[in-house]
Amino acid sequence: MTTIGEIGEDALIALFVPRLPETDAEILGPGDDAAVLSVDGHLVVSSDVLVEGRHFRREWSTGADVGWRAAMQNLADIDAMGAVPTALQITLCAPSSLDVDWVLDFADGLREACEPHGVGVVGGDLSGADQIVVSVTVLGETHGTEVVTRADAHPGMVVAVSAPLGAGAAGLAVLTAGVDAAPEAVQLFKRPRPVVGAGLEAALRGAAAMMDISDGLLRDAGRIARASEVGIAIDSAAVPVHPAASVAAQALGVDVLPFALTGGEDHALLAVFPSAGSMPSGWEVVGRVTEEFDGVRLDGAVPESLGWDHFSR
Amino acid sequence: MTTIGEIGEDALIALFVPRLPETDAEILGPGDDAAVLSVDGHLVVSSDVLVEGRHFRREWSTGADVGWRAAMQNLADIDAMGAVPTALQITLCAPSSLDVDWVLDFADGLREACEPHGVGVVGGDLSGADQIVVSVTVLGETHGTEVVTRADAHPGMVVAVSAPLGAGAAGLAVLTAGVDAAPEAVQLFKRPRPVVGAGLEAALRGAAAMMDISDGLLRDAGRIARASEVGIAIDSAAVPVHPAASVAAQALGVDVLPFALTGGEDHALLAVFPSAGSMPSGWEVVGRVTEEFDGVRLDGAVPESLGWDHFSR
Repeated sequence: MTTIGEIGEDALIALFVPRLPETDAEILGPGDDAAVLSVDGHLVVSSDVLVEGRHFRREWSTGADVGWRAAMQNLADIDAMGAVPTALQITLCAPSSLDVDWVLDFADGLREACEPHGVGVVGGDLSGADQIVVSVTVLGETHGTEVVTRADAHPGMVVAVSAPLGAGAAGLAVLTAGVDAAPEAVQLFKRPRPVVGAGLEAALRGAAAMMDISDGLLRDAGRIARASEVGIAIDSAAVPVHPAASVAAQALGVDVLPFALTGGEDHALLAVFPSAGSMPSGWEVVGRVTEEFDGVRLDGAVPESLGWDHFSR
Repeated sequence: MTTIGEIGEDALIALFVPRLPETDAEILGPGDDAAVLSVDGHLVVSSDVLVEGRHFRREWSTGADVGWRAAMQNLADIDAMGAVPTALQITLCAPSSLDVDWVLDFADGLREACEPHGVGVVGGDLSGADQIVVSVTVLGETHGTEVVTRADAHPGMVVAVSAPLGAGAAGLAVLTAGVDAAPEAVQLFKRPRPVVGAGLEAALRGAAAMMDISDGLLRDAGRIARASEVGIAIDSAAVPVHPAASVAAQALGVDVLPFALTGGEDHALLAVFPSAGSMPSGWEVVGRVTEEFDGVRLDGAVPESLGWDHFSR
């Protein structure tokens, strides 16, 4: 094993950069003070961070898994605006004792996630730190369509999700319990598989409000409710549960529903449509928008738990 | 004192976001899955990271100092391309025990640095972590001018810097030594004051290659040499030393020159011009571009030390 402290920053960059995905939008790529991109239409930009020990553990996820997740959750944010992702900026902080191979594996995961979508890594920064911290900024374009925000949900509209929920959260619970079970859920925690492009399709079909579910259905539905100054009523019986989550819940002897309601690991989309008839295929109605500006209700009541808070642990 | 763990993520965001600077380029600001910006010309993008215990210490720098530095060093990267900065994305990782006031102070520092330049913070992410890690991605525009890269230095051209060097590194040395001296150098370490716009001016005056000095004059000159496949000969007697660095060196009883040659804290610009006559006022010639592709030479010899490596400590 060779550590990144042993080879140093310049040598690490020389090994790392050639493994990164490229984009056609790139005019000047990594290696200068800044990268240069062509942008067609409006620029859409978002950032997400992954912290070792909080969002991933090295004993559970490979470098490639972390690279994949870092890319995917950011592509989902652009897709959730109804826009098209083009490029990533990556900052990687890591202890000097980290294996060089981990970093190269991380680059491979970024490439695997990005290449099918024509998305490139155009720049970033490296630094030492006590734990691995990956920060990703994703850039995208609108191509003339309007972005879909969280703020335009109206009473009477339907609330829907783009895919069955809970697999990632259930996989995390399996790993946390140290149980050897539910490999599909575990794999979906390590490598979430949101359908990039589902958001653009929803936007073209008239989605009024949309976001990616990154902190759990209930918490994120509350965010649409707040931004739109409406209420959102979720019907728990209507929430599609991922079969892998059910397998995991059974192995753990717990109820599967909380994984689907409060898990944010899948990066499926949550959207509000004028009616169920206008949804693209594959989406499932999980509730409706209500008049009263009072947050999210689950089966008519205030939910006991909303799920994840980034500073609560 | 109230900690960020006590108030939680949503409450922290509600306090933090209103203190951030705004930009006229903003179409949709913080609070959605992504921000939306208008871009005129080509997009220029760069990222830098600041890690507690490596780039700053809380006992030396306030939250506002860290916010200021985080913004300034990123604005300098866009300026160093001869482009104009417009917006920042910020990710902030911090322990849950951090004082809320530190985070709000951090926002104030961002605003102080950005507002004079019309630069806004349009989005970002917050997460828990064991130490504070600030990652900034800066976005800028070219407005029709060509960017100035590191790759177009040619033999016979002059190498110049935009400002006297060494104050920041000397200030850091004073703080590290625990000496109560040289307050100007200490202040310039905490709040570097690169002249944003100096790079655009240099670009308009025909700078052939340019970068901001973030890892020290010698190391960064070596990067221009490598990118341009030339040599760069630096004349140590010609390097302008900041008066505050001299005061600090005297107080510490050390030679001032290493601060100017290997300190990267000032974020002054390093550029190559066709001739000394084409430089904007205030720039000083420190060397010349040579034919042989052999890196950087100091007074004719390979330098003993190049300065900072991000994983070497």
